[in-house]
This record gives sequence, structure tokens and C-alpha cells, in this order.
Amino acid sequence: MNIEMIRTAQGRLRGHARVTPLLSSPFLDEIAGRRLFVKPECLQHTGSFKYRGARNAIAALDDATRSRGVIAFSSGNHAQGVALAAAEHGVAAVIVMPSDAPKLKIDNTRALGAEVVLYDRANEDRDKIGAQLAGDRGLTLVKPFDEPQVIAGQGTVGLEIAAQAAEHGYADGDVLVPCGGGGLTSGIALALASDAPGMRVRPVEPEGFDDVARSQAAGAIQRNTRLSGSLCDAIITPQPGDLTWPVIDLYCGPGLVVSEDDCLRAMALAFTRLKLVIEPGGAVALAAALFHRDQVAGDAVTVVTSGGNVDAQVFAQALERFA
Amino acid sequence: MNIEMIRTAQGRLRGHARVTPLLSSPFLDEIAGRRLFVKPECLQHTGSFKYRGARNAIAALDDATRSRGVIAFSSGNHAQGVALAAAEHGVAAVIVMPSDAPKLKIDNTRALGAEVVLYDRANEDRDKIGAQLAGDRGLTLVKPFDEPQVIAGQGTVGLEIAAQAAEHGYADGDVLVPCGGGGLTSGIALALASDAPGMRVRPVEPEGFDDVARSQAAGAIQRNTRLSGSLCDAIITPQPGDLTWPVIDLYCGPGLVVSEDDCLRAMALAFTRLKLVIEPGGAVALAAALFHRDQVAGDAVTVVTSGGNVDAQVFAQALERFA
Repeated sequence: MNIEMIRTAQGRLRGHARVTPLLSSPFLDEIAGRRLFVKPECLQHTGSFKYRGARNAIAALDDATRSRGVIAFSSGNHAQGVALAAAEHGVAAVIVMPSDAPKLKIDNTRALGAEVVLYDRANEDRDKIGAQLAGDRGLTLVKPFDEPQVIAGQGTVGLEIAAQAAEHGYADGDVLVPCGGGGLTSGIALALASDAPGMRVRPVEPEGFDDVARSQAAGAIQRNTRLSGSLCDAIITPQPGDLTWPVIDLYCGPGLVVSEDDCLRAMALAFTRLKLVIEPGGAVALAAALFHRDQVAGDAVTVVTSGGNVDAQVFAQALERFA
Repeated sequence: MNIEMIRTAQGRLRGHARVTPLLSSPFLDEIAGRRLFVKPECLQHTGSFKYRGARNAIAALDDATRSRGVIAFSSGNHAQGVALAAAEHGVAAVIVMPSDAPKLKIDNTRALGAEVVLYDRANEDRDKIGAQLAGDRGLTLVKPFDEPQVIAGQGTVGLEIAAQAAEHGYADGDVLVPCGGGGLTSGIALALASDAPGMRVRPVEPEGFDDVARSQAAGAIQRNTRLSGSLCDAIITPQPGDLTWPVIDLYCGPGLVVSEDDCLRAMALAFTRLKLVIEPGGAVALAAALFHRDQVAGDAVTVVTSGGNVDAQVFAQALERFA
């Protein structure tokens, strides 16, 4: 995994992934106590950065392999990214989801052209079902984060940040990134180490699911004790990935942790000041920049808002409580 | 007023106004029955396209005139655009607002550095107060739409649409634009007549406030009978402008009219599919493309979402009813 893979990914994504803008508001600068720049990946195709990694991974397959189709395990943003990227390549995508996934997510993934295979969380083994399907049909598994071409695709966010920050006249300060398995965090860290070495990536996680921050503190991979029960479900994973962790360990500053209420408040401010819809997990980095400013370094802080796939009820709740 | 003024405005706005992206969603294409592209000016500074015209008009003043400051009458998007553009130039902005304007709008305008002068709608004459202030202090009036440099600034949206449409492989079809006084509509129409003559601008208005569509049908300026009582207040004006009307009459296709419920439904779809916050008046063009597709021409339709300054309660209502 290296910067050349990220540059190759950028070439593959050109004309497909959106180059999201870099947004700001004087009102948010005031709260953050410094210039604050927002990289809104909620505006990416399918509503999250996941499309970048999925598209790059599928594009990187050789023609014969790709033509047999791909498979992914996800009920969320990764599923939609893989479904759209596969459809654009004209190949089959099978998405394995728990049968209790929200109907809207199942419908959206199907509407993007994927075949959804449901399994019973309590009585069936997801990996066994997936392996069987992959074997029978020659499908290639697209992992959500612990896969070099996925990390390279997410890293294109970092190349864009480096270039856009230069246009805005800055080249350093913390870059706060919502962190689940670490694909986006490690990809951006690799890109910035090359193109904007004065910038430092800081992973941000929700309280109670801070496996990365604890891994950094311990110097070794730590696991989350819980895996559900967070509004920030989009970025909850058991532990950092085998490939992403060494990159985070080497390149990133200490992780930050925010509360669910911090996220909802950040969502309300993004509504009022940026006109953006952000999902709770996608708001953790913005929340850290706004409400934990004493833990952030630099005259300018950059935050990634990684996704916007939030239920209307949850969004309305954020507005009612904090807008 | 001509294309050269719009190109000059584009030069003046470079590095200041955001080049907003051109967004799309396969789900919206499906509803629109064709490819649909959204130009989200809600992502512009201050949350609406108004910043473009205000910034251009202030930048176009000679130094001595500009240094004495500017004045505007507005309780809405134009006020915020003028306030920010004046602050960026380091000159005073006086904004005259009715004393019953929402406190949030007054506070926002002040926070952007403007001096807010309140007047009593029932007992005081706004124009007299403004003329007195302008005379005493040598302030220059920045009109909201019927002013060549304001129209030229809004026209930069059209230059961007022409270039971005070419990148997306199309050069024709209807371009639907939310229309109040007609500054944005006429500016875009002039820009496209030059840079993408296969594209046709269509003004879009809310039901009951369709002065432009009726003026087009009558071949002469018509007035609205009411001037308040619409959710789409951001785009309600008494009649088309003296400068904007001839351009609209000459270059635009017939106007479209949408209901308030169409707007709320479009806002809910923009939330779900584009992760954008749009105000009701800013949603009229999207609503027309989605819910009046039989009145729209072309394989691709482009819509401008002109602003996102909506109260949280109104937005929550759109989500509750239609998301």
C-alpha cells in the first residue's frame, strides 16, 4: 500500500467519483476557534465516501475476474457503494445482509441493481453463506476496509484535501476523520504524508466504541466490547483492520472521542450553516472540531463528514433538540 | 447587460464564490424520467446564490465609492450576501429590515458584520429611511435583482452550468430556475445563450405568485396580487424587474408553477437522495423537474436549488410528511 496506488485510484475515479468541495462558514470558524474546513463526502455518490473504495477495487480487477461479479457483506454505506460501482461496470453484485436490516436499505441496494441475499443473524453463518456463493459463482469479495484497493480509493479524499487546502492558503493543522475500520483514515493519512506532510490525521470515534483511540494508547490492537446500540452505527467495527492499523499507528495523531449528543449538535449546525445532511457517524469529526477544540491543533482544522445516510426521524430529532 | 459583464464577474468572483458542483442521483433520474442534474447554490456562501451578485456589485464599485459603504433593503438571502461581501471588502454594510423580521435573520446579518437598521412596517417608509441614510453617509444602494452587476454576478451560475454540463456529456435540455425578481433567471439565460445555446431557461414559481409566468403569457409585465403568505417567501416579489423582464421575455421558455406541497416533497427527496438542505423557495425548480415532468423538455434537465436558509421547523415538517 503506497501513494502510487492512491494516485492510480484517483485516475480510475476521474469522471466517476465526485470531487467534493471544501466548505466553510464564519459561524463555524467562531465555534471552532480557528478556520474550519469541511470535506463533505455525504455529497459523494450513494451518500458516502464508500463509493470511492468500492469503485476503485472493482475497477482494479482484471476483466475476466470482474466479469464474474462481486460480493460484499454490508447493510449500510459499503453495500450501496459496491452496488453502484458494480452496476456502472455492468457486472453482478451480490450483497449479503441480515434479514432484520432496515427495509429502506435493502430496497435502496436492490434499486442500485444489486442482488440482496438475506440471512438469519441468529441461526445462519454469514461467512459460510458468502463463501458458498462466491465459490459457486466465482464472485470476488470486496471487503469494506481491510483491502489495499479499497484503502487506495478512500485515500483519494486525502489527495483532494491536500490540493484544496493549498487553494485556501493552508498546508497544516489537524485533519479529523470519522473512523470505523480505518479505511478512510489510513487512506487519507497515506495521501497527506506524501502531499501535505504538515497536516496530521486524527481518527475520531463515538464514545463506547473507541477501539482505535485505545489501540493507539496501548500501542496494540484493542477491541470494542459492544458492537451495537450506537446512533453512529455507520462507523462501528469490532477493531481496527490488519492493514489499516499499522498505517494509523505510524501516521496518525491521537484519536478523539465524542458523545452522541455532540454528533446531533454538529448535525444541527451543519444543517443551519452548511446546508448539509450528515449522518451521526459521519458527524463525529465535525463534532470534535466544534466541541473539543482544546484537543485540536493548528490555525486551520479540516474535517471529513463521511456520510449522510440518516433516517428522517433521527435527523428531525437533531433539529428539534439542537437547531 | 451582456455576456462580457458576466465573464468579468466570473473573474471577480474567482477564489471567493464557490464553484458549486453538479449533483445527481439515479433515484431522482427515475422520478424525473430523464437525467436530472442539480446545481446546489444552497452550498454557496451565506446559503444562497445571492452572495454572487452582491459580491460582484460591490467589487465593481470604484474604490472611493465602495469605501463609503453600501446599503440594502432585505430581511433575507440578499441581506446576508451583501453583509458578507461588504465585510470581505472591509467596507460598511447597512441593512434595512422590518422590525418584525425573524430574530435569527437579524442576528445572522449582524454576525456577518452588517449594521441592521429596523423600521416599523406599518408606520415608517422604508425607502425614505434608506434614502436618508444613503444621503447622509454616501452609501451605495445594492438592489436585490434589478441592477446590471447583480444580474452579471448571478449569471456566473450559468457559465458554470454550461461548463459542467459539457463535462457530463450534455449541451441541451431545459434549465429550471427558481424565479423571484428574475436576477438569477435572467443572468443564467444570458450566460447560456452564449455558452450553451442548446439549453433553454425556464423560470419556476410557486402557485399564487406566478407573476413571471403570467407576464410571459400576456407578453407584458403582470403583478402578483398577494405578497406574503407563502412558504416560498425567499422568491416572492411584486413583479419582474425592469431590467430582468426583457431578458426573460427574449430568452426563456414558458414558466412553470408548483405547489407548496411539491416543494416540501422535493425538499424531502433532496434530503434523502442528495444530502442537501433546500429552502421551499429554493426547491421550486427541483419540484417542477420531479413532479411536472410532462411539461419539461430534453433528455437531461438541469435545476438550480437557489438557497437553503430554511427554519428547522419547516424542514422537519417536510421530512415528517414526505420522507
